[in-house]
This record gives sequence, C-alpha cells and structure tokens, in this order.
Amino acid sequence: VPDVAPLLESALSGDRAALARAISLVERGGDDARAVGRVVHAKGGGAYTVGITGPPGAGKSTLTDRLITEARASGDQVGVLAVDPTSPFSGGAILGDRVRMQDHAVDDGVFIRSMATRGHLGGLSLATPEVVRVLDAAGFEWVLVETVGVGQVEVEIAGAADTTVVVLNPGAGDGVQAMKAGLLEVADLLVINKADRPGVHELERDLKAMLELDADGGTRPVLRVVATAGDGVPELWQAIVAHRAELERSGALADRRAARVVAELREIVTRRIEARVLDACGSDIGRLRDEVVARRLDPWTAADEVIEAVGLS
Amino acid sequence: VPDVAPLLESALSGDRAALARAISLVERGGDDARAVGRVVHAKGGGAYTVGITGPPGAGKSTLTDRLITEARASGDQVGVLAVDPTSPFSGGAILGDRVRMQDHAVDDGVFIRSMATRGHLGGLSLATPEVVRVLDAAGFEWVLVETVGVGQVEVEIAGAADTTVVVLNPGAGDGVQAMKAGLLEVADLLVINKADRPGVHELERDLKAMLELDADGGTRPVLRVVATAGDGVPELWQAIVAHRAELERSGALADRRAARVVAELREIVTRRIEARVLDACGSDIGRLRDEVVARRLDPWTAADEVIEAVGLS
Repeated sequence: VPDVAPLLESALSGDRAALARAISLVERGGDDARAVGRVVHAKGGGAYTVGITGPPGAGKSTLTDRLITEARASGDQVGVLAVDPTSPFSGGAILGDRVRMQDHAVDDGVFIRSMATRGHLGGLSLATPEVVRVLDAAGFEWVLVETVGVGQVEVEIAGAADTTVVVLNPGAGDGVQAMKAGLLEVADLLVINKADRPGVHELERDLKAMLELDADGGTRPVLRVVATAGDGVPELWQAIVAHRAELERSGALADRRAARVVAELREIVTRRIEARVLDACGSDIGRLRDEVVARRLDPWTAADEVIEAVGLS
Repeated sequence: VPDVAPLLESALSGDRAALARAISLVERGGDDARAVGRVVHAKGGGAYTVGITGPPGAGKSTLTDRLITEARASGDQVGVLAVDPTSPFSGGAILGDRVRMQDHAVDDGVFIRSMATRGHLGGLSLATPEVVRVLDAAGFEWVLVETVGVGQVEVEIAGAADTTVVVLNPGAGDGVQAMKAGLLEVADLLVINKADRPGVHELERDLKAMLELDADGGTRPVLRVVATAGDGVPELWQAIVAHRAELERSGALADRRAARVVAELREIVTRRIEARVLDACGSDIGRLRDEVVARRLDPWTAADEVIEAVGLS
C-alpha cells in the first residue's frame, strides 16, 4: 500500500488542490483508494448529506447553487458532489450546467466536484459514498449530492443521503413520472421548482394524493420554489434543517446510516466476489459457453458448474 | 420442480394464452422459471433478435409498429418485447404508447408483451433473455426488443440483440447525448426518425463524424425515417435484413451469441452468489455494521470478514 498520508494530511487540513487529488485517487480505485478510504472513514462522521434529484431540466443545479448560499450564511462549509453517469467527463466542475456554481469558486468554504465516470471502477453507487467520506473527513459540515441523470442508479445515490430532496416541475406530468421512477419513495422533501408556471396546483394536488398512499400518510412536505429568483429557497433550507433535527431527535438518522453501511458492505462484497468469479472461470467458461450455445447444456446448469469451480459448491 | 410440460406444450404450439402464462412464469422467477427455461433453451435457436432503443419520445414504438408490418409481409411471425424499467406495470400491452401496436392484436402471427417490472426478481437484464428464449422456442422468426427507458440497463438490453437499432431525432442534441449515454457503441444501425424536421443534416453529419472515430471507421449505416408516415421504413427493414445476412456470412453472429451466453452466465452466477452472501451474513452483518458505524472498522476490512464467512476466504 502506497503512503497516502502526506497527501491526506494536506487534503484534510484545507489544501483544496490536495483534496481534489485525494478524491481522484478514490475515484480511480485500487490500493490508493482503499488507503485513503481507511483514513477518512476513521476521521469522518461530522458531515450531513443532502441528496438532490429529479428529472433532467428540473433546475437541480440552480437549486443546489442557492442551497450552497443558504448553508454558507450560517458559516458552515459545503462540499458538493454532482454525479452524472451519462457524461464521459469527471474531475473539476467542467460540466456546462455546473458553470453557474462557479460563483462559489472563490469561496474557500465551498468545494464542488463533478463525478461522471461511465466505466468507473466499482460503479458510481460505490464511488459516491467513498468520495462523500473524503469530504466528510475534510470537515465539510454539509455535503450536497446532486444527481444529474434520472436512472435507477442516480435515484439510489441521491436516496442514500441523510435528507433527500426531489425536484419536480409543474405542467410536465412530473408527478406520475416521479412515482413511476421510484422518486417519491426516496423523497424526504418534495420541491416544486419553477412554481411560477401553470400547473403548480395540479402537481401539488397529485403529489399530496400520491404521498397519502404511503405508510407515513403524506406527512412529507411539498414546497414551492422558484430557484432562479430565489423564492422559497430559505423555506426549503429551513425544511432541510428541520428534517435533520427530527431525524437526530428520533434516532432515525442513526438507523438510516446503519442501513447504508449494510448496503455498502453488500455492494463491496458482491463486487469482490464478482471479480473472483471472473478469475476462477478462466478457461472453463469457454467450454461451458460452447455447450450452452450448442444447446446441450442450459445456462442454469452451467452456472452451477461455475459456482462449483469458484469453490462455493 | 413443478410440471410445466403441459403448459409449455400448448404455449409452443400456438396457444397464445398459454404463451402469455409461460412468460409470466419466467418473469416471476424461481423453480417454474427454471423449468420453463430448460425446455425452451433446448428448443430455441431459430429466432433473430432486433433491439430498438433511443431517448424517450424518439418514436421507438411507432417504428417498432412499422417494423412488425415489414416482417409480417414476408410471412414471418414476430414477437415483440417492450421493456420499461420505470413502469410498475407488467404483462399484456397495457402501457399507453403500446396501444397503437394493437393494430396487430388480431394478427395471430404477432405477439406483443410489455415487461415493466421494477423490483423484478433477478433484474431486467436477466429476465429479458429468458423471455426472448420463450418467444424463440415458440417459433417467432423475429423477436423485436424495444426498450422504453434510456438508462444503462436498457442500453445493455437492446445492445444484447443480434442487430441493434438506435433511434434518434433531429434538433435535440441527440447525437452528443447518444454518444454520452453509450448508445453509439451498441448501435449497428442508426435511425434518424422524424427526419422531416429541421436539423436532420446536422444530426447526420454529427453522427457520421462520431462514427468515424470508431474502430469500424464509420461503416455503420445512418438512415432517415419518418415512422409516422412510413417513409424510409422499407429501407430500414432492408438494412436490418442486410446486416443479418452479413453477420451470418462472416460468422460474427455466432461470436455475438457466444459472447451473450458468457455475459448471461456471469450474471446468473453473480446473482446466485449474491443471494448466498445475504444468507451467509445473517446475524454477523449486524456486528460488522455496528463496528463500521462506530468507525472502529472500515468497510473494506468488514467485507473481508463477510467473504470469509461465505466460505471464500
């Protein structure tokens, strides 16, 4: 294991360039990533994560930008992780719609990172908590995780935050779409952005009706916001702070975080066993493949043989 | 293992209601699914699969509808599987945009099936080849697999066909989006649908430029179609037939199918080992979780312990 200690010492004591390099190490995976992970896991625990998700064009970046300002008003430091699985670009804030967040670029209490990473080692669902852990150890009181896409992985990522904000727009059938995509299930707070447009009453009514079907009986807030003008943003921030306070008071925060640890553990174990299966199969998979192709063997019986070869019979 | 033989005998000899029930068994997973899978795997091999994917609203359903007509003109039977991971509905053709395909509902040579299945056992990427296998054994010469969503899973599903058709629209930045989403990598044929709209030249130019960057040097066809009017559809069908002939002539079809068998095998093995990990962890995961939450243990060391517990140390 290489010695990442000097880099991490700089990264965790305010050197933003070192922080960026440490995150890059984590993103690349392998021994360095694990060495960083071990250190930052031990040092973390102070950050509160807020996931922000919703359909493309819902105004998530603008809203995130506004929430940075709200968090900064209390003096807290804010780390932002923008996850976009459809983009080939990773690293600094180079995505087009990240540009406006660069208003915060001169503020040393704000650190913005884009994570794109098709083909990322271990996948985004594993990389995201690892990067969040680095930001946590670096002392950011708030870590905002914005997912740019709207696939299942993005919903899972944003839903794995302490508080999850789902952003929708009026007039676009967003309510039903959000339900179908599983967005309502992960939402702690629902935001109707662009609430100055027609259809806001209908979306609000639909959302409340759908929320009432859930176990909590529709107690989750639905807030109206116009992110571009800043309208409703202080109220949204207060709702996030109130949700946090309630989770802390009730003990639900500790439960959520414990459940996330279990999910992450399972993911790590699965990936590792997958790698072992690929190794163990080696040449034998060629024979099994040919048998299945020739329809002399079915895939499930062939799978039994692979599992035996891995040493799991 | 229950006796699925009578149902399958009906399903594979033209009884469409029995076919629908057999597919439902496969979708539900478990012993019945495996019993069906074993029989249909041994009987299949005659079907040629065409994947149809692209962004929402690109006109994939309309195009699929037109391709059914083309395939039927030669007397071939056509099975259609419409995969929509964002929909909670599965089963018959109950999705809104499937409705128009019901023109073919009275044609016994056409069988249309929607597969929705959030929460599907084993996931859509495993369920799709299993359902395709049933249609194959039932004697459909063509199986069209249309993916309704645009996530990574859908791209993988449509890309796992013998011939993959990617449908894009002019004027929407579809070219760059398709590249980012990995759509170009899986495309054998690119279709510009709604080619009567502005921007068709630009999209065609962009696509050809991006295709030229690839290993095959841009030999993949880019076709213009207006699916609603039927313009260009016969030419698209001929391009599909020509692509099939070329794959068969060169031996690439056999290679593709062998590679798909390997991918499916790996997927089955991984899912099965995952299930075993969940079993093996049992109570121990609680202790490991608590240690990780308390930051006395890091997730990677905890994962080592789980792997040992599964018997894979």
